[in-house]
Amino acid sequence: MCASNYTKPEPCCDRTIGTRTGCVATYEQSCTRDDPQSLRARYIAVRRVTESLCEPLCPEDYVVQSMDLASPAKWHIAHTTWFFETLILEAQVVGYEPFNSAYRSLFNSYYNTISQPFERGQRGALSRPTVTEIFDYRRAVDASMINLIERCGEKDAALRHMIEIGLHHERQHQELMLTDLKHMFSVNPLKPSYIVAKEKVASASGMSRKWVPVSGGIHSIGHAGSGFAYDNESPRHEVLVQDFQLASHLVTNADFMAFIEDDGYGRHDLWLADGWRAVQAENWLSPLYWQHGDGRWRYMTLSGLCDVALHEPVCHVSFFEADAFARWSGVRLPTEAEWEIAATGLRIKGNFLESQTYHPLAANDVASEDFQQMFGDVWEWTASPYIAYPGFKPAAGALSEYNGKFMCNQFVMRGGSCVTPRSSVRLTYRNFFHPQNRWQFAGIRLAK
Amino acid sequence: MCASNYTKPEPCCDRTIGTRTGCVATYEQSCTRDDPQSLRARYIAVRRVTESLCEPLCPEDYVVQSMDLASPAKWHIAHTTWFFETLILEAQVVGYEPFNSAYRSLFNSYYNTISQPFERGQRGALSRPTVTEIFDYRRAVDASMINLIERCGEKDAALRHMIEIGLHHERQHQELMLTDLKHMFSVNPLKPSYIVAKEKVASASGMSRKWVPVSGGIHSIGHAGSGFAYDNESPRHEVLVQDFQLASHLVTNADFMAFIEDDGYGRHDLWLADGWRAVQAENWLSPLYWQHGDGRWRYMTLSGLCDVALHEPVCHVSFFEADAFARWSGVRLPTEAEWEIAATGLRIKGNFLESQTYHPLAANDVASEDFQQMFGDVWEWTASPYIAYPGFKPAAGALSEYNGKFMCNQFVMRGGSCVTPRSSVRLTYRNFFHPQNRWQFAGIRLAK
Amino acid sequence: MCASNYTKPEPCCDRTIGTRTGCVATYEQSCTRDDPQSLRARYIAVRRVTESLCEPLCPEDYVVQSMDLASPAKWHIAHTTWFFETLILEAQVVGYEPFNSAYRSLFNSYYNTISQPFERGQRGALSRPTVTEIFDYRRAVDASMINLIERCGEKDAALRHMIEIGLHHERQHQELMLTDLKHMFSVNPLKPSYIVAKEKVASASGMSRKWVPVSGGIHSIGHAGSGFAYDNESPRHEVLVQDFQLASHLVTNADFMAFIEDDGYGRHDLWLADGWRAVQAENWLSPLYWQHGDGRWRYMTLSGLCDVALHEPVCHVSFFEADAFARWSGVRLPTEAEWEIAATGLRIKGNFLESQTYHPLAANDVASEDFQQMFGDVWEWTASPYIAYPGFKPAAGALSEYNGKFMCNQFVMRGGSCVTPRSSVRLTYRNFFHPQNRWQFAGIRLAK
Amino acid sequence: MCASNYTKPEPCCDRTIGTRTGCVATYEQSCTRDDPQSLRARYIAVRRVTESLCEPLCPEDYVVQSMDLASPAKWHIAHTTWFFETLILEAQVVGYEPFNSAYRSLFNSYYNTISQPFERGQRGALSRPTVTEIFDYRRAVDASMINLIERCGEKDAALRHMIEIGLHHERQHQELMLTDLKHMFSVNPLKPSYIVAKEKVASASGMSRKWVPVSGGIHSIGHAGSGFAYDNESPRHEVLVQDFQLASHLVTNADFMAFIEDDGYGRHDLWLADGWRAVQAENWLSPLYWQHGDGRWRYMTLSGLCDVALHEPVCHVSFFEADAFARWSGVRLPTEAEWEIAATGLRIKGNFLESQTYHPLAANDVASEDFQQMFGDVWEWTASPYIAYPGFKPAAGALSEYNGKFMCNQFVMRGGSCVTPRSSVRLTYRNFFHPQNRWQFAGIRLAK
Repeated sequence: MCASNYTKPEPCCDRTIGTRTGCVATYEQSCTRDDPQSLRARYIAVRRVTESLCEPLCPEDYVVQSMDLASPAKWHIAHTTWFFETLILEAQVVGYEPFNSAYRSLFNSYYNTISQPFERGQRGALSRPTVTEIFDYRRAVDASMINLIERCGEKDAALRHMIEIGLHHERQHQELMLTDLKHMFSVNPLKPSYIVAKEKVASASGMSRKWVPVSGGIHSIGHAGSGFAYDNESPRHEVLVQDFQLASHLVTNADFMAFIEDDGYGRHDLWLADGWRAVQAENWLSPLYWQHGDGRWRYMTLSGLCDVALHEPVCHVSFFEADAFARWSGVRLPTEAEWEIAATGLRIKGNFLESQTYHPLAANDVASEDFQQMFGDVWEWTASPYIAYPGFKPAAGALSEYNGKFMCNQFVMRGGSCVTPRSSVRLTYRNFFHPQNRWQFAGIRLAK
Repeated sequence: MCASNYTKPEPCCDRTIGTRTGCVATYEQSCTRDDPQSLRARYIAVRRVTESLCEPLCPEDYVVQSMDLASPAKWHIAHTTWFFETLILEAQVVGYEPFNSAYRSLFNSYYNTISQPFERGQRGALSRPTVTEIFDYRRAVDASMINLIERCGEKDAALRHMIEIGLHHERQHQELMLTDLKHMFSVNPLKPSYIVAKEKVASASGMSRKWVPVSGGIHSIGHAGSGFAYDNESPRHEVLVQDFQLASHLVTNADFMAFIEDDGYGRHDLWLADGWRAVQAENWLSPLYWQHGDGRWRYMTLSGLCDVALHEPVCHVSFFEADAFARWSGVRLPTEAEWEIAATGLRIKGNFLESQTYHPLAANDVASEDFQQMFGDVWEWTASPYIAYPGFKPAAGALSEYNGKFMCNQFVMRGGSCVTPRSSVRLTYRNFFHPQNRWQFAGIRLAK
Repeated sequence: MCASNYTKPEPCCDRTIGTRTGCVATYEQSCTRDDPQSLRARYIAVRRVTESLCEPLCPEDYVVQSMDLASPAKWHIAHTTWFFETLILEAQVVGYEPFNSAYRSLFNSYYNTISQPFERGQRGALSRPTVTEIFDYRRAVDASMINLIERCGEKDAALRHMIEIGLHHERQHQELMLTDLKHMFSVNPLKPSYIVAKEKVASASGMSRKWVPVSGGIHSIGHAGSGFAYDNESPRHEVLVQDFQLASHLVTNADFMAFIEDDGYGRHDLWLADGWRAVQAENWLSPLYWQHGDGRWRYMTLSGLCDVALHEPVCHVSFFEADAFARWSGVRLPTEAEWEIAATGLRIKGNFLESQTYHPLAANDVASEDFQQMFGDVWEWTASPYIAYPGFKPAAGALSEYNGKFMCNQFVMRGGSCVTPRSSVRLTYRNFFHPQNRWQFAGIRLAK
Repeated sequence: MCASNYTKPEPCCDRTIGTRTGCVATYEQSCTRDDPQSLRARYIAVRRVTESLCEPLCPEDYVVQSMDLASPAKWHIAHTTWFFETLILEAQVVGYEPFNSAYRSLFNSYYNTISQPFERGQRGALSRPTVTEIFDYRRAVDASMINLIERCGEKDAALRHMIEIGLHHERQHQELMLTDLKHMFSVNPLKPSYIVAKEKVASASGMSRKWVPVSGGIHSIGHAGSGFAYDNESPRHEVLVQDFQLASHLVTNADFMAFIEDDGYGRHDLWLADGWRAVQAENWLSPLYWQHGDGRWRYMTLSGLCDVALHEPVCHVSFFEADAFARWSGVRLPTEAEWEIAATGLRIKGNFLESQTYHPLAANDVASEDFQQMFGDVWEWTASPYIAYPGFKPAAGALSEYNGKFMCNQFVMRGGSCVTPRSSVRLTYRNFFHPQNRWQFAGIRLAK
């Protein structure tokens, strides 16, 4: 069932792939009955999460592409399935018959190695296949994948690795799907809700920002060891940094309102030239999704239009806004090396997809840790252009197109957000977006 | 039910407005049990036709806007309802409460007098209101409208006229909805069908075109009398034309293939300058929806991709192509006055929406009439720019925006098409589109 | 010599083609010593006028293309020469060697029959050939042309006609060159002058507009007889018009200010839909070249920035503005047939290029004629789309591209302007521009 | 005098500022008679060089803006003067009267601190001020500047530093002016020459590329000490690099042809995603200015169209092409730190502006140095995005806009080119352009 005022039911669990009805919110970490570490269980769980995220949607909500950068929910559902079918089943299963040969191109995102991708900006022009047909596609591929996994020995490391990548890929699209849905609902004058907001515990007071000193010197960053990581997180390598200080918590909406009130969007000297051009061309006066009226700021959330909460982290800002805010504050953004050095050793906990707030939360003013909100809540823009680590080798085959070819004109974000699945979050994870992008759940942590 | 291979069920009839299930294809002329001439009956019938045209659609099909010029089916369904609510109920019913005040702007097409219309190119960005909600809107407005009609005396001519306009407006959108759906399905690589094609009786042979002479002199054209007509068909006025000849039937696909084979799309001397620019900028090589492969031409129809039938009228050509074809043929297009003079006195019969072919048909090679296909099949481009008749007075109020403000840069088409409801077709009806438009069911009749 | 404060010297006369120095402003009607009716004399005179119009220009002024629609003065100088070389010398003179074979394409405007024209919007990217080289080109072609004319017998009617067309073509470019220079100077913040303004005799008072009745019925319009005319003025044919009234003189700046003050640019109901879109997209608030400041309106003229003179005809309005003004006035624009019928029999006199004001003048308030300003001052927008007269046959060969291919999306203007050479002005002359164009010297005469 | 076949005269020297006639090619290092180290002498010399570079130009050549990124020569001449007037004379000279107050905005490039800059893409729309007027402006500002310099004591370090910046700024524009002129001449089908090519000594053979090893570790890069440098070269700081190898000389045209022949422009796997998009959108098939015909490659040079010389360094490639070439070669581009470390200690000699070839030269195949062509010939694209050095502080005042605000979406180039004045070239100089830019004299040195 779908409706604007939809209330999310309690999670349940249903092992049968292929029956969506009656099973909602079966989150990854809690919902499989066999060994939760088994690949099979994890495959089922991850796939189930994607489907559960669709529960509040009406069929119409799956179709719309509200801007070129966003994709219809239907496309996310199909593309993640395409990834398993095209990169794994077709390659590994002798005699595998594609579910529909037209999907090879239709649901290819950007892998030129595989086929000519269907034009990105036209994803919203496709009413067919229908949502039902796409869920049929999912079920068929899931059945083949589970069959393959069950036959796959522990020693078939390459295949298991590909499946892991497929699961991580799916988690990325869980996040993107929510991100894109938020944008779609935001452009609708009816301001629909994806989900009813949970009641928030009001933060007693705004926290004063503390500066936490971190020692410089030669540090190692990047991925090493046996855990999962994308190619762009390697190789682990040494970097030389100077001593620095990093803010204890994120820039808040109250902080950002002070910037707005001080004419931050009107002072060219605070902005990079490209940023200033964006401010003027797109008439930016606030973060994305904010609107002003009747003397107050409101913003669009996945639970509809709300008053801006002062102590929450500011969200939906571009790199340009993060950079201008830092300059206005007399400090700067951290580099990605600084961020990773500071975060090393911290426990990965926070407000992720699984908390089902789908919204960043205020810092806890009684916490004793040096750093709050390092993981979850909002991605943190860094000052670092997204480029290869020294000695970077792209993955082989089609996966070489996964990360490496985007190493240009983007900036690194770190730490995950409130719509990032917990399992996607890693100390070394490098997210990247163009400096003008604002529809991601991205915010600001300052350094100096 | 909706599906790509949907077979249209037999028409039935259900008087209860508000129950779509079980009632399909209840066409206007056959489906009301009370006096079919009564306004109430006609209101119900026209509204029912619109809904019946939606039967083959899945919810997803209602959402997509495949180009700026086209609108989602959902929007057509809502906008025709908006017309009755905003222009009639709000104006006539004391204390009328709008179904949803946001709809006033959301479903306004272009009436600046009423509200700021929602941005046209963004109609496909709205997943909400859902199809169900929009049908609820229809039902609510229908109930109020029927109530109003029942209270409305025969003498309330102004109100009855407004309602008539609303019904004619709705019929125009029945045509546009099918036209837009065809475009939407055409851009989808899966080439979905709206409906299973009827079996066609093959035309035994191509007809040879005859030239029918028509006497010039002073003739009167335009609407007069008490029947319904739009403001732009008036006033009836005298025109002076020279003797001319008009082709007995429409230009066929076979005719047009000869133009293509003679490099018609490659010879600048055949084209208006703006047409030649369109040919080059958009790389036109054939009518819209045609594609060439494996040595044959195929085209997209509302029943999917088919071989081009030689003796059918060519369809989905722009004014530029019609004009270039005429120049290549050594003749010209008729003016709208010539067309109307030649058509005066002909019976209005032909292949309209009600025949449910949704596709133009070949001429009947044993017919004895001078003219075939004058009404229905395809709109006929004329050589006449769309301008006001001498002494034209736009309708009053918001309806002044209905026709008059478009009298610039468009050309007149005459005669109706296979997706035009029979009741929309009139001798004096002036349809108009920009010379580069190709998604209408438009073809060519030659004159000299 | 060129300078912003250049004062135009007295006309002199110099028969030697090829010596520009010392000869300025040798106007067509006064400057040849042999029979002024002879083709040779007229050729020399027309060419000399073009050159004299360049006298106030610095070399830099010849180079700039201030918008896609405008051309550099250098290009006009070269293209008019190209016309004689390519269409006449190459066709008529055995063994003729082109001055520079690259010019065939470089200075082709739009004749696809001849060569691929150099891209229109790039005309301002060419610093070479230099002005000097282009004048060398003129001299060389002039020498060949005069040689050809001297050898050309009276009976070689076809050739003589081609030369006549070349001269009329050149006169059109004299007008366009001034029109384009005005635009170029207008976008320059320094607001340079082309020429020092003559002192104006102040108009004692604004004239009150009179309505002159004209009888309808069957009239003939279009060109007939042996005089020169373009193909699009033929064939002469009968038209049927109703009785109408035409304004005695042009709409003035004072009239137009009243429209502005009544929020004419802010009321959608006054505008065609395409016009309203132009108003909003381009933020029109006044005619082109007007600017408001310090409580008064000023406009750019060919003598720099001046206060708007109230009783002068309004100029540099688009068709959309002319149409909106007429609607605001409760009347309409005349059709081109009405204009021609009303103007039939009037003497062709007025404020043309030769008066060297390069600016429209106020009506004479003591004149006794029914109509003032019918010829000269400003082109008069008509309500008529530019289309073929019944039975129109384009000229043969490359000249078929001269007029016919533009018969789409443009409107007819009549009567000539203050920058039109007297010899270009004809009762039947049909000028045509797109309805959004404003850089022509175009104004408004009302009808009803 | 200017002409397409202009031969550059021998340099002479004339101390009188303000007399261009008779003084050409007075190059900076040789042309002042007073102490060549004096600021006065250097001011005169630098300004003279700019003017001498204009000698081959016709007035028309000064006007054209051949693309948005390029500026008219006239604008360069004026803007460099504006820099001295606005940033120095207005600030330092009490009661200074601007030459023309409109120039403050008209010749402002991008300093929002000073005024609203005239729109960049419209610089070619200005025929006025004329070249003569702009040289008058130069002379007037030069007179005031020399007066100021003569009054300026050795101790007025801040002022002297500003003047130094002005001179370095002017040298940058000397390079840009030639770069822009090359583009302008290239789009002209006549392919004009700026200067007659010197006879080239043919390189006996292609050199084989050697790999020169460089030790990693902690190195210092960036500017320190008392010499001139821009703000973005500071602070000098430590970097940690791994051992690497750098190519002994630049990638040649022959090398690049092998890439082309191996379908380098057709293989998506060689390109960054943004690069691949540029290849397809702009149909890149070779470096800028190359054209293929009659079985051979030719390119546009400042001496017109020539056969591509195999052993010269490839030039006019974008970062994307440099990066794709490196990937095709199995290696990579150096970082800017690597480049600077390798170049440390090398003598700054090479093919600069002063050699008057205005074209990169082949490596000397008998040279014994490890590295050739490190300075001069072509700018070398590095793998480094252009960002701030750690601790970067922008200059104060308007000069804060000089470098810092562009630290986004650009890549660093190092080493100078054949159109860079010798005095502009520094070990630590950081040039930067967008990765798609190709009109700079930029080439490739490989690393691994």
